[in-house]
Amino acid sequence: MIKLKEPIPASGKGKRASHIYRVAAEIMCHKGYEATSMNDIADAAGLTKAGIYHYIRGKEELLFEIMMYAMDNVEQNIIVPAQEVADAEERLRTIVDRHTRSVIEGVGAITIVLDEMTALTPAHRKTIASRKRAYLDFIRRTLEQLAEEGKLRNVNPTIAAFSLLGMILWISRWYRRDGKITPQEALNDYLEIAMNGVLKMEAQA
Amino acid sequence: MIKLKEPIPASGKGKRASHIYRVAAEIMCHKGYEATSMNDIADAAGLTKAGIYHYIRGKEELLFEIMMYAMDNVEQNIIVPAQEVADAEERLRTIVDRHTRSVIEGVGAITIVLDEMTALTPAHRKTIASRKRAYLDFIRRTLEQLAEEGKLRNVNPTIAAFSLLGMILWISRWYRRDGKITPQEALNDYLEIAMNGVLKMEAQA
Repeated sequence: MIKLKEPIPASGKGKRASHIYRVAAEIMCHKGYEATSMNDIADAAGLTKAGIYHYIRGKEELLFEIMMYAMDNVEQNIIVPAQEVADAEERLRTIVDRHTRSVIEGVGAITIVLDEMTALTPAHRKTIASRKRAYLDFIRRTLEQLAEEGKLRNVNPTIAAFSLLGMILWISRWYRRDGKITPQEALNDYLEIAMNGVLKMEAQA
Repeated sequence: MIKLKEPIPASGKGKRASHIYRVAAEIMCHKGYEATSMNDIADAAGLTKAGIYHYIRGKEELLFEIMMYAMDNVEQNIIVPAQEVADAEERLRTIVDRHTRSVIEGVGAITIVLDEMTALTPAHRKTIASRKRAYLDFIRRTLEQLAEEGKLRNVNPTIAAFSLLGMILWISRWYRRDGKITPQEALNDYLEIAMNGVLKMEAQA
């Protein structure tokens, strides 16, 4: 069983908020964002309606907070550790490994909610879009370095970056932790397919 | 510029219906399904509200019709031609090529609307889910045949099938036909990444 090394602190709001984010994301995925009420979320989180408003101002605010939490996760658990890896091929493997793990590890609903950009206020949308772009740029720069080293296949680094992201983010749409495929098997196969898809040489084990 | 060989007949409802589906899918993607009204769709399609009800019974029905249209497209433009290809590697290339083309070719909004499963009635949801499953099974059987032929990497065919689907479906989220990347470049690179990702040997040109 693979596990994230440690729980992700939710930008200073603590465990309670992060619990609400996960529960809310699950409901929004199941019912759809528009059809989900603050009551639904309070019920599922085991809070009164007054209780939940102690933590969250409203539904749009909550959606934004969930997305910020998701992008904090990306930064702390993917970008920061990967930045420490000097070798570009190892860095790419670190990105694919850590991102795949985090989607498999049950933050799938949060990954899906990240698509609900139209429900955000314009200012919030801009903030989230810019954090997503920063992550994309980080992956692309790694692929550009691999191109300079002659290791990237003859493909556009932007296209390669989006291919990898699509492959990994899609896991949240189909993978069931109670199904036949173990987390370890899914992780291994995604690494194999992703690394060989974009790199010329067989990925090293 | 790549083009689908011919327009896709919309299960007997003709050109007008298929125009409405495309327009409606664009608006639903932009505004979100819940926030889109029949009025919005009529306006964009250049019809009166009475006019649109001549073609469509209501919003849920319309969503279902769009999804049926999308799955007709998958069957007629991907599955049927690919079934005619006896060689499994060539069949896989046909699937990736045709599916990637259809997403690039501007049915991206329709691809995204295919995710709106929660908005369907249970009976409609069952119908669409079973058509999606049939397509997945078709890809998986092709990968299983490649495994028997010793051509598939050491990966689970189910995981490989979902990797390919994720990679291709994600194109609708980022690709802009008015951007710097030409349709042909995107198609070539997706073929390169997808085929090399799952097959042991270098994909043949």
